[in-house]
Amino acid sequence: MLKVAVLGATGYAGKELVSILTRHPYVRPYYITSESFSGQRLDQVYPELRAVCELPLEKLDLAKVADCDFIFAALPHGLSVKEVPKLLETGKKVVDFSGDFRLKDASLYPRWYGYEHSSPENLAFSVYGLPEYHREQIREAVLIANPGCYPTSVLLALKPLLAEGLIETDDIIIDAKSGVSGAGRSPGQAYHFPECTENFKAYKVAAHQHTPEIEQELSIVAGRPVTVTFTPHLVPMIRGILSTIYVRITAGVDEAAVNAAYHKHYASEPFIRLLPPAELPETKHVSGTNFCDLACRFDSRTGRLIVVAAIDNLVKGAAGQAVQNMNIMQGWPEDTGLK
Amino acid sequence: MLKVAVLGATGYAGKELVSILTRHPYVRPYYITSESFSGQRLDQVYPELRAVCELPLEKLDLAKVADCDFIFAALPHGLSVKEVPKLLETGKKVVDFSGDFRLKDASLYPRWYGYEHSSPENLAFSVYGLPEYHREQIREAVLIANPGCYPTSVLLALKPLLAEGLIETDDIIIDAKSGVSGAGRSPGQAYHFPECTENFKAYKVAAHQHTPEIEQELSIVAGRPVTVTFTPHLVPMIRGILSTIYVRITAGVDEAAVNAAYHKHYASEPFIRLLPPAELPETKHVSGTNFCDLACRFDSRTGRLIVVAAIDNLVKGAAGQAVQNMNIMQGWPEDTGLK
Amino acid sequence: MLKVAVLGATGYAGKELVSILTRHPYVRPYYITSESFSGQRLDQVYPELRAVCELPLEKLDLAKVADCDFIFAALPHGLSVKEVPKLLETGKKVVDFSGDFRLKDASLYPRWYGYEHSSPENLAFSVYGLPEYHREQIREAVLIANPGCYPTSVLLALKPLLAEGLIETDDIIIDAKSGVSGAGRSPGQAYHFPECTENFKAYKVAAHQHTPEIEQELSIVAGRPVTVTFTPHLVPMIRGILSTIYVRITAGVDEAAVNAAYHKHYASEPFIRLLPPAELPETKHVSGTNFCDLACRFDSRTGRLIVVAAIDNLVKGAAGQAVQNMNIMQGWPEDTGLK
Amino acid sequence: MLKVAVLGATGYAGKELVSILTRHPYVRPYYITSESFSGQRLDQVYPELRAVCELPLEKLDLAKVADCDFIFAALPHGLSVKEVPKLLETGKKVVDFSGDFRLKDASLYPRWYGYEHSSPENLAFSVYGLPEYHREQIREAVLIANPGCYPTSVLLALKPLLAEGLIETDDIIIDAKSGVSGAGRSPGQAYHFPECTENFKAYKVAAHQHTPEIEQELSIVAGRPVTVTFTPHLVPMIRGILSTIYVRITAGVDEAAVNAAYHKHYASEPFIRLLPPAELPETKHVSGTNFCDLACRFDSRTGRLIVVAAIDNLVKGAAGQAVQNMNIMQGWPEDTGLK
Repeated sequence: MLKVAVLGATGYAGKELVSILTRHPYVRPYYITSESFSGQRLDQVYPELRAVCELPLEKLDLAKVADCDFIFAALPHGLSVKEVPKLLETGKKVVDFSGDFRLKDASLYPRWYGYEHSSPENLAFSVYGLPEYHREQIREAVLIANPGCYPTSVLLALKPLLAEGLIETDDIIIDAKSGVSGAGRSPGQAYHFPECTENFKAYKVAAHQHTPEIEQELSIVAGRPVTVTFTPHLVPMIRGILSTIYVRITAGVDEAAVNAAYHKHYASEPFIRLLPPAELPETKHVSGTNFCDLACRFDSRTGRLIVVAAIDNLVKGAAGQAVQNMNIMQGWPEDTGLK
Repeated sequence: MLKVAVLGATGYAGKELVSILTRHPYVRPYYITSESFSGQRLDQVYPELRAVCELPLEKLDLAKVADCDFIFAALPHGLSVKEVPKLLETGKKVVDFSGDFRLKDASLYPRWYGYEHSSPENLAFSVYGLPEYHREQIREAVLIANPGCYPTSVLLALKPLLAEGLIETDDIIIDAKSGVSGAGRSPGQAYHFPECTENFKAYKVAAHQHTPEIEQELSIVAGRPVTVTFTPHLVPMIRGILSTIYVRITAGVDEAAVNAAYHKHYASEPFIRLLPPAELPETKHVSGTNFCDLACRFDSRTGRLIVVAAIDNLVKGAAGQAVQNMNIMQGWPEDTGLK
Repeated sequence: MLKVAVLGATGYAGKELVSILTRHPYVRPYYITSESFSGQRLDQVYPELRAVCELPLEKLDLAKVADCDFIFAALPHGLSVKEVPKLLETGKKVVDFSGDFRLKDASLYPRWYGYEHSSPENLAFSVYGLPEYHREQIREAVLIANPGCYPTSVLLALKPLLAEGLIETDDIIIDAKSGVSGAGRSPGQAYHFPECTENFKAYKVAAHQHTPEIEQELSIVAGRPVTVTFTPHLVPMIRGILSTIYVRITAGVDEAAVNAAYHKHYASEPFIRLLPPAELPETKHVSGTNFCDLACRFDSRTGRLIVVAAIDNLVKGAAGQAVQNMNIMQGWPEDTGLK
Repeated sequence: MLKVAVLGATGYAGKELVSILTRHPYVRPYYITSESFSGQRLDQVYPELRAVCELPLEKLDLAKVADCDFIFAALPHGLSVKEVPKLLETGKKVVDFSGDFRLKDASLYPRWYGYEHSSPENLAFSVYGLPEYHREQIREAVLIANPGCYPTSVLLALKPLLAEGLIETDDIIIDAKSGVSGAGRSPGQAYHFPECTENFKAYKVAAHQHTPEIEQELSIVAGRPVTVTFTPHLVPMIRGILSTIYVRITAGVDEAAVNAAYHKHYASEPFIRLLPPAELPETKHVSGTNFCDLACRFDSRTGRLIVVAAIDNLVKGAAGQAVQNMNIMQGWPEDTGLK
């Protein structure tokens, strides 16, 4: 049994990760940290974990991290960039949940994340942990930048289309919708039940920090620069992301070519479900799972293709994908503990 | 006090209409019909109306309609087209909630509504009841085709941009989201609480019957054919529509021109609220009101403008707008009974 | 038009009050205060009020209060007890929303509210503002202690039974359930959407501060001491209270006597709706209204009567009742602005 | 691997059962039936099961049932009573989810279930499948009457108190609240999202069919007849039951005795969690689990004890308990596949 550290175990992603790890046959959560709740047990913060995981929460201590075999860091943006270099010095592999090691171009951080990146050498060193994009590099990686929730849904939706050159690269519109757990566990006015339920809104229109991450990875697949318009929305539900993506088909491409591309790229992927023609993704259908459901529709009247993708933001969009990455890094079957 | 008939009073739009009418100073609901619930009182179907409106529900009887001064028809698509011509023979003015008299081109009905239109002469005769588009014609109208809920949000969002020639007319993407009351009062699997709550999905992608209605009216404002890509979604909340609309700015247009256009067209509109720069529309802010809240954002990276519109689908998107139309037709202050 | 002050206008009860007052024909909100949001306008805190009530929020200033004709204080428990005596010195009538002037016995405050009462003379002076209990005294009152939300539902449910001596006074169990707005507008972990939705729980079991208020008023009606067991619960919805109350029938009492008592006491009450035999109260049926819906059922197997009461906690349970009290105090029709 | 039949696999309890069975190490769902959806696969009815369980749904065929090793019947009340006797003729063990074999006294069926029982010999033969009450008999049982959801929560809450003689047996009030999945998968007006969400109500007050089941089992534990007042309520959430139970302490009993009783009876139970003093059960904490969370509070002012119990109605209240029963019947560790 691998001894695993979870740094930042009381956020929603950290807690989801611990829950998955308790069901994983080859590992066990061994050392879990929380700066705010140290001194309590995890099941005191999340009573649903009583009799499931009653580990104590401790403040981050590198000596104790070094005593583990594998490290997950679910720390806030801006803190990971400082802590991860120290974690790497332990010689253990690290999967980092934050955005701090996802962008290869350090110069993007001030604009999108509001800070100067202090560890640019690790940006080159880290591997973007989307198995459907970078499986081979993940296998050898020491530092994984686990993808953002929105980008995961978008990147999976568009890979076959860009890889096969079926769509224009400068005309991509992403209208994404997320459940409220994506905003984290800290209470705030916008997430106060009486104001959040029975409400729907857009936020950070054309200004969300996941935008450059999406463009970076799409550009790799397309082999040339890709720009996107990205608008996130808040849905009054706990979990789930649904992204509706509008692209323009390259001249001469037809529906058969689109379908062929999806099957070519995804027929053997364990966590991608291509829906039959009559169906569309719904967030409930992927809730609590590591699946990404995909479907698309031609709008023959306007020459656009509409791709719809659904994931659970806390699983395939965070903790499940992190475990999928660990499985690949350890040489275990990729779906271990995830089905 | 004008005696008003409400045909189809037990659907959500009909019930919302009766509620508004009970608070209107110049009219009173006098004759209300329901084919399914005739023999009961309205407050037996909607117990919240006990001691508020306890009128009996009757089957539709033209003689009784003729005894009223003004007629609202909140009947299903496909039924209105048959009943409205008879209603007009009473000589009374009619506001029709269905889509049956909204499209000027009768040949669109088989594709989008699934039937051959039997009353094309009334398509020319009817006035599309969006006051911000056709106030003068509404004043003189005998038959109002009350707009659809989605089109109301979209048409209000785009009028200033198209009227002033600020955007391209062939590159408009509408990603719209509606609360569940938009699907009507009849129970169905998709709207069964345990399946509908905590879920989000798209439906009728590039195939919704409101598409031609949107294109017809936008084309009038633009002065040339406009095509749109339109995708509706279902939000787990009762009321509200939020439409996120992606358009491409005409060369040379800047943010100031956009703002000027909105103020030019809407500064005196009683039911349009242009939000201050830092704010974005939210469905809760218009819930239960006849307001449409509007805001837009430039995405300078891609040259797109993103317009966000929010309405209450049952008020500005149906019953409130119907009353607004009646007020105009009767020469009353436009916000009578609506504030 | 009476000039009205609303102190504490940004809490949910204060905001509901302002909304009602904007529709009231004889008054207008004139001076509204907020310690946290002073300097902003009310519609900046509640964007739904844009174009409806755009008054500035000010810090509490007695000179400005004195310039008004009528005062509503929607301040927190423990603050009202200090401010209300000063408000009374202005010579204006005051309706106070807090619990600070509801208990006639000052010695109860330390246990149930956690403070020593500093103004016991006003406890004798204040009138408990439940019109169905104390209408005549309200008419002459200068200081109204506006009832708590839970007590309103319970007191209305039990008055006829106790007044007519139909039930035992030492065997009353109240199982009450409230929507989340009852917990106020300040965000907290328990009301954070992802933790609050899809959850149901009891809280303050046998320890809620509304208990002595309920017992005080029931004892007045019964003419002897009444004790109750009271358990509140949190329902994942915005508004509404439903109280299920279990009482033991006095020997010889039958269903007819119970029904007769309810009709005797409530047939002319404008805001109480006695439901027909087949129906039961639901919170949605009273949402946004000042009604209290009531029904009861005999459990012949156990000799118990079960009474069910539903109100909107923010209207009949707070702001609506406050306006009803004002109407009585001013000699206006009791339902002015409330229907 | 045991081959398991699930009859009635498309109801919520049947679907939950199949989901649990796919994760159980010693069995596999082999034959699943649905009268309404035969001809489709289970994942066509529940798309979340795509790539998880894609078994075809068939009409019930006894020959195919006989080919299985173990039978779960999740059929409606009134149908099970007819089918189970035929199932037993296959010689296989049966766990029946319906109420048809729970009541030992056949004469209760006309009043509470609306039919004359046609198989009274099996009422004596069946074992009430609540492991915490009848574990030894379950071990030897051939026909298990799997408990109702409400009764499970109530019986677990009260066993220690009645077994130890700590409370009165004629003064028990049960105020229970259930999520909407308890009403089944068939759409109906009361469960239509716009009417069900943001609503709370009581139903079947003093008339619910689970009442005699509760009394039967409590009487066994108490050793004398127990009567209860039972009121169910509908909570706008998918899953979960919370029962608040009011009992009267026998003279001389104190809090220590109560706590001792709970620990005596439940310290070794794998699925009962006794909460620490400061905590109360919440439905979210047991969601998706087979746990029952319990806590109690003394109301010293009235001499009552208030017991609060929470379960997931579809797991410990149905499918999870059924698997727990199977585990006991097969001699497997009781929590196999359930943790």
